[in-house]
This record gives sequence, structure tokens and C-alpha cells, in this order.
Amino acid sequence: MIRDLSMPIYEVMSTLRAVRRLKTDPIPDAVLNRILQAAAWAPSGGNTQPWRIVTVRDSAIRRRVGELYRPQWQAYGAQARQNLAQLTGDARAKQERMLDACDYLGEHMGDAPVLLVFCFNPDLMAITDADLGRPSVVGGGSVYPAVQNAMLACVNEGVGCTLTTLLCFAEDALRSLLEIPQGWYTCAVMPLGYPVLGGHGPISRRPVEKLCYADTFGSRLDLDAISAST
Amino acid sequence: MIRDLSMPIYEVMSTLRAVRRLKTDPIPDAVLNRILQAAAWAPSGGNTQPWRIVTVRDSAIRRRVGELYRPQWQAYGAQARQNLAQLTGDARAKQERMLDACDYLGEHMGDAPVLLVFCFNPDLMAITDADLGRPSVVGGGSVYPAVQNAMLACVNEGVGCTLTTLLCFAEDALRSLLEIPQGWYTCAVMPLGYPVLGGHGPISRRPVEKLCYADTFGSRLDLDAISAST
Repeated sequence: MIRDLSMPIYEVMSTLRAVRRLKTDPIPDAVLNRILQAAAWAPSGGNTQPWRIVTVRDSAIRRRVGELYRPQWQAYGAQARQNLAQLTGDARAKQERMLDACDYLGEHMGDAPVLLVFCFNPDLMAITDADLGRPSVVGGGSVYPAVQNAMLACVNEGVGCTLTTLLCFAEDALRSLLEIPQGWYTCAVMPLGYPVLGGHGPISRRPVEKLCYADTFGSRLDLDAISAST
Repeated sequence: MIRDLSMPIYEVMSTLRAVRRLKTDPIPDAVLNRILQAAAWAPSGGNTQPWRIVTVRDSAIRRRVGELYRPQWQAYGAQARQNLAQLTGDARAKQERMLDACDYLGEHMGDAPVLLVFCFNPDLMAITDADLGRPSVVGGGSVYPAVQNAMLACVNEGVGCTLTTLLCFAEDALRSLLEIPQGWYTCAVMPLGYPVLGGHGPISRRPVEKLCYADTFGSRLDLDAISAST
């Protein structure tokens, strides 16, 4: 039974981290299937499931995706390295390690054995914040729960992954390469592979009391349990 | 240890369903804290965690949120009932049961013991699909993973929940009520409460092979394991 294969959920959530150095070893079909099944279980507005995953395993197509990703990362990463100048000490060293890993991925995206390209169709979505004169995110509410489920499943399966969105800048080329029809768009490319280094593990996040407020925005949330369990 | 409290992840994912009839009983602080902690663990672009949750427990504020939600659901639900005319048989009966539950929530949103109002700040996001001349969703990639984690935690805790986004249509009123500062916006309101009926359980989703393609969009994905495990 599938449940026997799976880890306790809080252990999975608390160790989901970006894994950007991936081995080229293939991912067994059964493992890949469980990752895709996890995505399929996700809720969506009106249960329309307005997303599809193009599961790229063909080496020539993966290489082409990697070639599209490389210049996008190079441009974005160059800017990110400039911003490092504002940081010092441990914060800077940590950020530099992260950028080194991103550089590695920038060069090796196409070597990952599987690339999950998430596509979505806005005509199947009720985008309630489309006309508010500010950036809209609600369409993402019917796609990124599936993305998150896939990433959590990767932790469970010992598969490294990371969510990238820079290929939106090359959407036309990706559409052509993957034969994505009109009306569908791309919103995430997730390389999958077994980790070169430690894989998933400890994460660094703000504590609950910095992220969550009581009744009105900015008001301190005092939960009896916060000090005990975080 | 927190991991001892948590269920196997695939069991959680495969039983996360919208629970719209909620008891008014309070949710213990320790339970609420674990749900919020799950949200806090979620990844976000550049780890900026560009979201906050206003955790509404004050009864007067909950009632006001419910009063804002009611007309939004009434308008949306009326349209959804008109669309029912296209359906027949089991599909129609199923949709009617769902709309009945939505009607219940429309009347009782403010009675749920906790309302999680998710807010986001686009200035903290790199929205790579902002200028593509099509609906943008990428900002949601830094918020809805946290929303999904919170919902999965609700399953683990036996707490009913559902993701609603209709209150974006009343964002100005919600901003005023919850004292949300300029620069922050709302993207989800999630009522939490113990289930009146069965709570989380079986879900209805498309099979993996209808959602996932091989190498190019629309191409059949043949994984050895698909027939065995789905």
C-alpha cells in the first residue's frame, strides 16, 4: 500500500529544501509515478485541475531546455551577485553558497534525468484578483499546490528538486520546443534527480510569530504552544 | 517530538478535501500552531517568505469577514447554479451537493473559530511572468506552497478547511477591517474548524496519465508503475 512508503508529513515539510546539484542517474518509473500522483492529488479551484506536467526525459529535449535556462540564470545570477555587496559575514557566505549551487544548476539543468515542466490554462481558472490593478497571484492557487505536493513527494522519495521560474522569460521558445498549444502557458520548471550532496535536510525559515498575526495585520499572535514547539 | 504527531504524507495528500461545514468549537493553540508552522516551512522564491497570515479569532472581526463573504458567494453561487443546467445525472447531483456545502459556508464563514487570511507583498517577489501579456501566476509560487502546507497540516490535525479566494473582490473592505498596510494584498481566506460531517476523506481527481505527458505536450506518458499504483 502506498501509505507504507511515506514519511510523517511534518518531517517531510521541515526538510524540503532546494537541491540544485543532481546526479544524472535515472529515476525509476515507480518513483516518478508517486511524485506525479502526489501532484495529481492537489486541490484546485472548482476541481478543474487547470495544469499539466510535461515530463521531459528525452536527453535531446532536456539539453535544449538546459540551453534555454543557462542564459536566463546567467543574467539573473549576475544581478544577484551584485546585490551580495550589501551583505557581510555569515549572511554573505550563506548567500554565496546558494548562488554557487544556482550556478551549478544553470550549467547542468539539462543533465538532470527528469525535468517537470508545469503548464497551466487560465481559461480553466477563476482568477478573482485579475482586475485589481495590482499583481495577480490567485491563478497560482490552482497550480502551486500541485507543485508543492510534487516537491514534498520528492523529499519522501529521496529525490532532489528545486522550483525554478526563470524559463517564463523564454516561454515562446519553450512552447515551441515542447509543442505547448495556444491557451496553455508555463509556470515552473522543476529538475529532478538524486542529490550529489546531502539532499533534503535542515531549512532556515522565519519563526511563526514573525509571519502570523492575531486578528489584525501586525498584531502579535500569542499561542500557548509557540514557545514550546518552535 | 513533532514528527510523532504526524501522518504518512501520501495518506494526508490523498484525503485533503474541501470541508465547508465547520463546528464552532475552538481550535486549541497547540493545534493551530502546528498548522501555522507547516505554512512557515514552505519554500518561496529567494526564501523571502513574502506572505503573512492574519489569524482571525476575534468573534466580531470574524463576523464582519463573514458579512463580506456572504454577498460574494451569493453572486458567484447563483452563476454556478445556472451552469448546473448543462449537467445531468450523477455529475449534476454531485455538483449540487458541493454547491449546497458552499451555500452553507457562505452563510456561516464568520462562525468558523479561525479564519486564516493570507496576505502577500509583490515587492518581495520576482514575478517572472509579469509582462508576458497573459494572466500571471508566478507570484503565487511563493504563497500557495504555504497555503497547501497549511491545508495538509489541517488533515493531519483533523481540522476541516477550504481555500477561498472570492474575498479578493472585497479586498479594500478586508484591508480596512484587518488593518492591512499598503503594499500588502490578500490572496486566500481559509476558514478552519472541526468538521460537522465526515471531514477529510476520499477525493476525486483525474488520473496521472491524463495530467502528465511525456517529453512534449499531449504525448502519452507510459510509466511501468502507473497501472499498478493508481
